[in-house]
Amino acid sequence: MFLPKRVLEEKIRKFLEEDIGQGDITTSLAVSSGTIVEAEVVAKEAGVVAGVEEAVTLLESLNLQAEALVADGSRIEEKTIIMKIVGDARTLLAAERTLLNLLTRMSGIATTTNRLINKVQDAGHKTRIACTRKVAPGLLYFDKRAVMLGGGDTHRLHMDDLVLIKDNHLAIIGNVADAVKKVRNAVSFSKKIEVEVTDVKEALVAAKAGADIVMFDNFSPQQVKEAVALLEREGFRSKVLIEASGRITERNILEYAATGVDVLSLGELTDSVKALDMSLEVVEVKRK
Amino acid sequence: MFLPKRVLEEKIRKFLEEDIGQGDITTSLAVSSGTIVEAEVVAKEAGVVAGVEEAVTLLESLNLQAEALVADGSRIEEKTIIMKIVGDARTLLAAERTLLNLLTRMSGIATTTNRLINKVQDAGHKTRIACTRKVAPGLLYFDKRAVMLGGGDTHRLHMDDLVLIKDNHLAIIGNVADAVKKVRNAVSFSKKIEVEVTDVKEALVAAKAGADIVMFDNFSPQQVKEAVALLEREGFRSKVLIEASGRITERNILEYAATGVDVLSLGELTDSVKALDMSLEVVEVKRK
Amino acid sequence: MFLPKRVLEEKIRKFLEEDIGQGDITTSLAVSSGTIVEAEVVAKEAGVVAGVEEAVTLLESLNLQAEALVADGSRIEEKTIIMKIVGDARTLLAAERTLLNLLTRMSGIATTTNRLINKVQDAGHKTRIACTRKVAPGLLYFDKRAVMLGGGDTHRLHMDDLVLIKDNHLAIIGNVADAVKKVRNAVSFSKKIEVEVTDVKEALVAAKAGADIVMFDNFSPQQVKEAVALLEREGFRSKVLIEASGRITERNILEYAATGVDVLSLGELTDSVKALDMSLEVVEVKRK
Amino acid sequence: MFLPKRVLEEKIRKFLEEDIGQGDITTSLAVSSGTIVEAEVVAKEAGVVAGVEEAVTLLESLNLQAEALVADGSRIEEKTIIMKIVGDARTLLAAERTLLNLLTRMSGIATTTNRLINKVQDAGHKTRIACTRKVAPGLLYFDKRAVMLGGGDTHRLHMDDLVLIKDNHLAIIGNVADAVKKVRNAVSFSKKIEVEVTDVKEALVAAKAGADIVMFDNFSPQQVKEAVALLEREGFRSKVLIEASGRITERNILEYAATGVDVLSLGELTDSVKALDMSLEVVEVKRK
Amino acid sequence: MFLPKRVLEEKIRKFLEEDIGQGDITTSLAVSSGTIVEAEVVAKEAGVVAGVEEAVTLLESLNLQAEALVADGSRIEEKTIIMKIVGDARTLLAAERTLLNLLTRMSGIATTTNRLINKVQDAGHKTRIACTRKVAPGLLYFDKRAVMLGGGDTHRLHMDDLVLIKDNHLAIIGNVADAVKKVRNAVSFSKKIEVEVTDVKEALVAAKAGADIVMFDNFSPQQVKEAVALLEREGFRSKVLIEASGRITERNILEYAATGVDVLSLGELTDSVKALDMSLEVVEVKRK
Amino acid sequence: MFLPKRVLEEKIRKFLEEDIGQGDITTSLAVSSGTIVEAEVVAKEAGVVAGVEEAVTLLESLNLQAEALVADGSRIEEKTIIMKIVGDARTLLAAERTLLNLLTRMSGIATTTNRLINKVQDAGHKTRIACTRKVAPGLLYFDKRAVMLGGGDTHRLHMDDLVLIKDNHLAIIGNVADAVKKVRNAVSFSKKIEVEVTDVKEALVAAKAGADIVMFDNFSPQQVKEAVALLEREGFRSKVLIEASGRITERNILEYAATGVDVLSLGELTDSVKALDMSLEVVEVKRK
Repeated sequence: MFLPKRVLEEKIRKFLEEDIGQGDITTSLAVSSGTIVEAEVVAKEAGVVAGVEEAVTLLESLNLQAEALVADGSRIEEKTIIMKIVGDARTLLAAERTLLNLLTRMSGIATTTNRLINKVQDAGHKTRIACTRKVAPGLLYFDKRAVMLGGGDTHRLHMDDLVLIKDNHLAIIGNVADAVKKVRNAVSFSKKIEVEVTDVKEALVAAKAGADIVMFDNFSPQQVKEAVALLEREGFRSKVLIEASGRITERNILEYAATGVDVLSLGELTDSVKALDMSLEVVEVKRK
Repeated sequence: MFLPKRVLEEKIRKFLEEDIGQGDITTSLAVSSGTIVEAEVVAKEAGVVAGVEEAVTLLESLNLQAEALVADGSRIEEKTIIMKIVGDARTLLAAERTLLNLLTRMSGIATTTNRLINKVQDAGHKTRIACTRKVAPGLLYFDKRAVMLGGGDTHRLHMDDLVLIKDNHLAIIGNVADAVKKVRNAVSFSKKIEVEVTDVKEALVAAKAGADIVMFDNFSPQQVKEAVALLEREGFRSKVLIEASGRITERNILEYAATGVDVLSLGELTDSVKALDMSLEVVEVKRK
Repeated sequence: MFLPKRVLEEKIRKFLEEDIGQGDITTSLAVSSGTIVEAEVVAKEAGVVAGVEEAVTLLESLNLQAEALVADGSRIEEKTIIMKIVGDARTLLAAERTLLNLLTRMSGIATTTNRLINKVQDAGHKTRIACTRKVAPGLLYFDKRAVMLGGGDTHRLHMDDLVLIKDNHLAIIGNVADAVKKVRNAVSFSKKIEVEVTDVKEALVAAKAGADIVMFDNFSPQQVKEAVALLEREGFRSKVLIEASGRITERNILEYAATGVDVLSLGELTDSVKALDMSLEVVEVKRK
Repeated sequence: MFLPKRVLEEKIRKFLEEDIGQGDITTSLAVSSGTIVEAEVVAKEAGVVAGVEEAVTLLESLNLQAEALVADGSRIEEKTIIMKIVGDARTLLAAERTLLNLLTRMSGIATTTNRLINKVQDAGHKTRIACTRKVAPGLLYFDKRAVMLGGGDTHRLHMDDLVLIKDNHLAIIGNVADAVKKVRNAVSFSKKIEVEVTDVKEALVAAKAGADIVMFDNFSPQQVKEAVALLEREGFRSKVLIEASGRITERNILEYAATGVDVLSLGELTDSVKALDMSLEVVEVKRK
Repeated sequence: MFLPKRVLEEKIRKFLEEDIGQGDITTSLAVSSGTIVEAEVVAKEAGVVAGVEEAVTLLESLNLQAEALVADGSRIEEKTIIMKIVGDARTLLAAERTLLNLLTRMSGIATTTNRLINKVQDAGHKTRIACTRKVAPGLLYFDKRAVMLGGGDTHRLHMDDLVLIKDNHLAIIGNVADAVKKVRNAVSFSKKIEVEVTDVKEALVAAKAGADIVMFDNFSPQQVKEAVALLEREGFRSKVLIEASGRITERNILEYAATGVDVLSLGELTDSVKALDMSLEVVEVKRK
Repeated sequence: MFLPKRVLEEKIRKFLEEDIGQGDITTSLAVSSGTIVEAEVVAKEAGVVAGVEEAVTLLESLNLQAEALVADGSRIEEKTIIMKIVGDARTLLAAERTLLNLLTRMSGIATTTNRLINKVQDAGHKTRIACTRKVAPGLLYFDKRAVMLGGGDTHRLHMDDLVLIKDNHLAIIGNVADAVKKVRNAVSFSKKIEVEVTDVKEALVAAKAGADIVMFDNFSPQQVKEAVALLEREGFRSKVLIEASGRITERNILEYAATGVDVLSLGELTDSVKALDMSLEVVEVKRK
């Protein structure tokens, strides 16, 4: 998920424009034009940082000097200074909230993702932890990238990069086997096909019909275990990736990981984010 | 915060465009053109619903019929059917995730806001509960509106509608009294002036200098109580609104409310949202 | 009303794009690529200059060097050189008209605003002179900022920063007292409430119901004087700001100022602008 | 200058979005959802109306019924009802100011343009009255169209539809004859070439070099008369159109028209507009 | 590649806006407002039609009635009437060129794609014919969709839906095996990995390292045949898809198809398009 | 057709954004951050290059150093190095395809245009070769500019810069003479009027009515010759430009040129483009 800075900047500038409205009236009246300050972004709790590249891109686009002291994806402690900034005070204060909103959201996502991954890996499982498309509207790139920086799998990036036949598709089409075959013939060779199934049998049908990935939706750990075993017995284990989704939480994630499933996906990683607390502090007024 | 539908639609359509990318390849291949379905949006947990107007606006702009069964701001139970939708299956499936992402985020915000307000009111306090500008970037309108629908106060809507002199402004200007006076003379008569203070004395200085609102940042409940008392003694209680912010959580909110402060503002209402779980379910295929 | 340069640049670039269309065909054919010129922006009449920051931002974004010789808000005489510009001739000639259209409009607004303010102040009144939302469509930021640079009050910046209950609202709601109370309970603590009234009694009703500002619309100076007196008698003079609007012109402005009203607002400041004449003159061809 | 409604609507919606900001807070709080009103746009002074099509397009895009009672370009008297509107009260009140700002500016331009044209025609001259590119930034389409509706000539619409070699081009190129020849060879056959000249001799040089149009800039009426005579003597009168520009005002326009020049162009038509006063009045509340 | 109509309309409207500029001056002057016509889009040569959905979407968004007589992807003969249109004459004439430019380009792409596919299939091969990302800038959706409607494979839709390690990546990384392994570990489970190789050995290395697809770039048919045979001998034929690209033309395509390769991709399908000739003809003036 | 770089950059960046989607996943995973490379754009066939300015503008906006070795409009041989580029490897690889798609399309257009012009000039004719508005949607500027760089005439740039009365206009209006006169009176003095005619008589009617340009649509060379002769006999040859369009191909272009017509316009120049083959090659890794 690499974006050239100029492209990234456009996305972020729109957030800034929204937050400013017709202009920052406080700064305009309270801070003299030409004032130069030095400031720091400081973590107020420990976690995994994400959004540093985005923050630096925003600041540089505003002609502020930004020096990142920690890299995206790093683990940080409380009071870690994440970046130092020097430049025009009015501009910095006008951008402060947008900067922090992006950094604290992305870092919050990376922190939670990373904690779940560590939990699963510490228990000796190789299960991938993935997010879904349940992001904050308009923040697809940033939410997905934060998951990636936390060590997670981004899953599909929008609706054009993976065929994912879900419950509502099947409610219309009626038959898993037909649906998969119809799509298999028509879809580009460059795409994988995933099917969401609601019982063990359907999983086998989907695999036989040529699905690359099968997703067990709202299965209990026990059901997942049985489904994995069935696919193994029928010789599809090496041909088909298995994903489980729904009802998976930090509490039960090890039970799911122990089923031998390949991927666990959690909507909560991006739709129920806890921001990682940070603040921007002016540390020196260099010119008034 | 009223927006004409046509204006609202533009904002939401951009979210949809991002989510779709170059096109929904699953629906395109799996669902026949011309298929008409009926579907429902169903709550999977109890809460306060928000985003219904946004959802209906999105659906109608896509030429889908949408009938809301509950109004924005209503309390709903698990399994409540929030809306019924009839129309082109491909279009609906392409819009499903954007629709739900908006509804579940806004409803999550409204639900938490409302719970805190009830807690405070049930304890007999009249304190207003407000959000801040700590929103998801790009979602200022939606996050603020969700707070409002949950019964909360939207606080300033961007940087142009309230003068808010914060710690970083004061770090540059140096002197609260000077800062407030300078701004008071220059600012439009249509704006209020708020000052964030870090100790009790500063609160008095700000009030004397002409601030309309004083915000106590990161004060303990005890400190807030003392500050309120001081302002009262000095005769400013009826002239100045008092806001407390920082460190306020669901656990300690009653202690803060008991201090007699006018407004409590919490960044968490919008930066640490827990989505309210909902799903869209196709309930009938009306034409294939 | 401070905007970071990068945000301001976007607004102005759109004006430029509109004026250029598919390309400047004259410059493309008549001026050789690589030609470097020095040019000046010269005032052709006296006034108060505004738009210099906007002009410099446009020029710098086009990689032209711009040196402002007078600051925004300064009084200038005929033939004053406002700025010197050095750089690519084709680029400068393509931007000339957009540059001048912005500068001459903003300076025209600042000049008229300033003349009215001086007139009022010279007569010993402290009345504020404000504009309204009667701007050229799309130029809200620029028109409001020009008023501010001329010494005027920007009034509300759009529809979200001040509650302003006008005649048409009252035509629907029916009752001033009810309207103000309804809004007072619901509106954010960060906003002021203004009510437009059509007779002296209503002014008192609005003040009693809790309006922060009362606006007398289309009152004669005599009526304004009576209304101010009534509010004073009833003890609301220090609690309520008083604005008069409608029918106020350069000719009668002193009569209105003499009534003791706080604010006089004039739509003409921004909807009937007389541009301040300026021209751009190439003074040296530095490289052909 | 015909634009399909859907294209026109996009332009106007952006003006509305700017004016509304994060939402109309007054209407949202003071007017109940679902209120239906009937309203009228009424002229408060006589003139020539322009912008009716734009207003109707805006209203219809917001799902409001609009019935125009006078056509664009018509002469109207004070108190003329220009259009009747029925629909959602909140939407209408949110759009009121944008609607009026567009209508009053365009009508102001059309009115002045038309008065000048009548003056010239009443004196028996056939001189065309044209505007220039001195418009309000971003309003090229609307300002030019208003001139056209007032009976004026739109002149070039941006920088790509006419070659216009001006003083600054000549300051760089040095020689009128060379400039015209260079351009003549290279420019598309679909374009005319105009040259701005500063003395009578240059006019002849330009004509000889192949200019289609010659513009006399800042000539006195006497100088224009001599220049026209010279071109006639030299046999270019039927081959070359003659435009005069600069210093032309309502006061001296007949002197210029009497010179026999083909076109008089005035920047003031669009850069120093006097809005034609109108208001929107709610006349009936049809449903509350 | 399904897009809701409202989303598709936005893309197409921008094309229309560009083509119109400040307005259609011919139609505005020559055709009376309110004129209603009936028109037809007629093919002037045989081929496969594509872009009908796009054309209808454009027309309906402009409030013109459009009835498609042939479906996207159909084979048509010279003189086939593709659609009938009824509505406002000015609007239709302003949209005519944009409509035809889209239809004739898309149909041209579909026609060529389809001809190549038929040639390959008639010779008894099952080889897929794919396009590349060599599209007209800005037309990714339309060009890819036209290929699909012609029966071709869209290949990746942009840079986020397939990992494709190309020559320039390898020039930097140095080693195919390392590159594939590095990516394999990091990439989302939802993506395939393709590697472009320049000799037969590298193809084997890529397959062993875990590539899902191997692309032979600029191989002769003989070299492709050998590479396919090698992968077969080594047991990778069923695990790895094989694509050949570069130097493939209509003339030699059967030689390439005969090699047993899975996919042939041709940049020419979209970067060297021959438009399918069509015209729009007004057949009846229904109201003047 | 000169555009300031900043304006041009905006157009091109949108193409890049479309091509990248949510991010370049290959480069992100395969190429280390901070890698610096040197690369070249190399022609793989001979032709006339166009798009160099566009390519350099794109690269510089991405902070890549670009040195053009050949100028736009130059004739190049196979293997010519068109430009050298140094900078961040990830950024360059993400921009490669957009860069080449623009360059190869524009160069393809310039090459064909130039070949036709040479053919006509070598045969001793002075006929201008022009394109039409049959461009790829959204590429009006780039396609027209490529024609210009190949030595061709851009014809009108959109619908606002030339009145062109076509067959469909006449189908509505009914009468050539009336149509021309109606337009002649109303149109701005800055515009030319062109009329498309379908027989020799109509050409004379149009000329008499005051058309500046007459276009013979789908005439055979013999018919064109007769029409030119008729206009000459009637004394209109020096007053009216003559254009022929339709059915003109590379094969018969000399027959048309020999008729004495002024302009030959060919839709194929821009609607049936053959891209000029080029590639970007990384030639050195300067830092890993």
